[in-house]
Amino acid sequence: MAKGTILSIDAMGGDAAPDVPVEGAAVLLARRADITLLMHGDEALLAPLVDAQAALRGRCTIVHTDAVITSDMKPSQALRRGKGSSMWNAIEAVKNGEAGAAVSAGNTGALMAISMLILRKMEGVHRPAMTALWPTVRGRTVVLDVGANLEADAAQLVTFAIMGEAYARAALDIEKPSIGLLNIGSEEMKGHDEVREAHEWLRTATLDMDYRGFVEGDDISKGAVDVVVTDGFTGNVALKAGEGVARMLASRMREAFTANLRSKLGAALAMDGLKRLREQMDPSNVNGGVLLGLGGVSVKSHGGTDARGFAKACELAAALAESDYRDKIIANLLRVRESGLAAG
Amino acid sequence: MAKGTILSIDAMGGDAAPDVPVEGAAVLLARRADITLLMHGDEALLAPLVDAQAALRGRCTIVHTDAVITSDMKPSQALRRGKGSSMWNAIEAVKNGEAGAAVSAGNTGALMAISMLILRKMEGVHRPAMTALWPTVRGRTVVLDVGANLEADAAQLVTFAIMGEAYARAALDIEKPSIGLLNIGSEEMKGHDEVREAHEWLRTATLDMDYRGFVEGDDISKGAVDVVVTDGFTGNVALKAGEGVARMLASRMREAFTANLRSKLGAALAMDGLKRLREQMDPSNVNGGVLLGLGGVSVKSHGGTDARGFAKACELAAALAESDYRDKIIANLLRVRESGLAAG
Repeated sequence: MAKGTILSIDAMGGDAAPDVPVEGAAVLLARRADITLLMHGDEALLAPLVDAQAALRGRCTIVHTDAVITSDMKPSQALRRGKGSSMWNAIEAVKNGEAGAAVSAGNTGALMAISMLILRKMEGVHRPAMTALWPTVRGRTVVLDVGANLEADAAQLVTFAIMGEAYARAALDIEKPSIGLLNIGSEEMKGHDEVREAHEWLRTATLDMDYRGFVEGDDISKGAVDVVVTDGFTGNVALKAGEGVARMLASRMREAFTANLRSKLGAALAMDGLKRLREQMDPSNVNGGVLLGLGGVSVKSHGGTDARGFAKACELAAALAESDYRDKIIANLLRVRESGLAAG
Repeated sequence: MAKGTILSIDAMGGDAAPDVPVEGAAVLLARRADITLLMHGDEALLAPLVDAQAALRGRCTIVHTDAVITSDMKPSQALRRGKGSSMWNAIEAVKNGEAGAAVSAGNTGALMAISMLILRKMEGVHRPAMTALWPTVRGRTVVLDVGANLEADAAQLVTFAIMGEAYARAALDIEKPSIGLLNIGSEEMKGHDEVREAHEWLRTATLDMDYRGFVEGDDISKGAVDVVVTDGFTGNVALKAGEGVARMLASRMREAFTANLRSKLGAALAMDGLKRLREQMDPSNVNGGVLLGLGGVSVKSHGGTDARGFAKACELAAALAESDYRDKIIANLLRVRESGLAAG
């Protein structure tokens, strides 16, 4: 196999596995000659699918296993019974240095738990955080934590800011990402104690970071900052509330354009613009959540994504595998510890 | 003046005061012969505006004051210096029984503080909660608290559920509103302690209430329940995040329809459907926030709303003034206290 980045794919995770993972990986490899694959799953199912993809020929090693983590397994069950499954093996290959990053569209809770167990936490990180890429007027914004933890104290929020900054640089290719802390109201006196304390730290700490202060919920879609930091409960609610609004408006738009013959004709004429709009709104264009703060890269793809969306998640995994973002995180965490804040 | 509901309007609050409050009140009165007004503000400014509205003739008493609460005043300043202002007088008229409800498009923090001071808290309510009406696929859903408090313990969340239920019945005219508790993940084990504790109470308490259990962020826009209960920090972030997404998509849609001549022509043909869509998405169609849990009705209109939106807020105020929702709240709070939960 050629040299370069090696991705470790859980081919059995997600609503349309193994078809979507195999096709999605092929979409990426067709334009990235430097990437090769380990494909974990049932060889009898995978071999014909892989053979059918010209882009995968000679660049994809199938690693057979019968065992699968199902979507209804609880994290604790996945930890007890998941050993040897396609998801487990995909992550273990990263741990063993056989691959630079793992990608799975399977059970989110299981993926977080198994990734945490196998890859361990990065030095100085007590609580890993889940990221989301949020589409904005200006591009994309990283939001974290979106659900790996229920709560976050000030030190954890500072750690999330440090991790989110390094991640945005690697994932979005931004030289100097700007950071905001999610709050309600921009006055200095508002907000939970932990949010205000984290604000003071980020404002005064000698971090080489473009910290912009508090942002509010509506600033996320404005793209006011590149990274929005919050606790996992608030981040998860905000993300899902935003997704719900987008889905409602998309369905209303469909209604508006199929109301009668005139509106259908109008939609046909405006097709180019509507297609672009659809692409911009397409969740598969911003697919990929990463559990930051681990000793290796493990990327979560939406379970219901299509091949193009899975390719996006693989592309993100490759970008992280090739970047030094974890060194940046370690360096900034050290600075924070030296300035006296208890590590989160 | 005719008998019926009397509304007390702060004519000087909001970005386009006093024009929008006067015009908005007139929009409502044109179709509601049973409502009369007290209009608080600068008589020299108000008299010609009121005279110009046929619907207000003989049904609107101007209560003069020079003093105004400005939009940049902090709540503490408003409490110290606000006495005798148009906002203060509008609320005091409710306290004195001269009007059934007050409406203001002015400074939110000031309105909450002054309402709380003058109208006092309802018996059994320790923390009033701010409501929002959230547009959904099926209609509208009440979300509370959206920012009156930073946090909520289990007893307070139960109180919010009771207040939200009675409010939905009065404001949305729903016989038996369904209630959900905002959480991340629908499994019983997830969520903050206070959320899980409130869930147990709502599930087991002998309240005459259609409690449906946990809902997630994306369930709000689905209209999965009529009332979504959460703490003020989470509710405020969710509301603003959703507004941000809606605004981003609206601006993207405008771009899509003005991209070129074909798309402009298409938009012209689809105009009817697009107009309906615009109306459905129009925030002025769901205008009106209410601070629940007070000894009287005080409705907050968006500061930037137009006359139609202000009319909606007035209509909501009238519906609440005419309903017995506060008796329902008191009765359910009593049941909760009798079953042993500390009052929130």
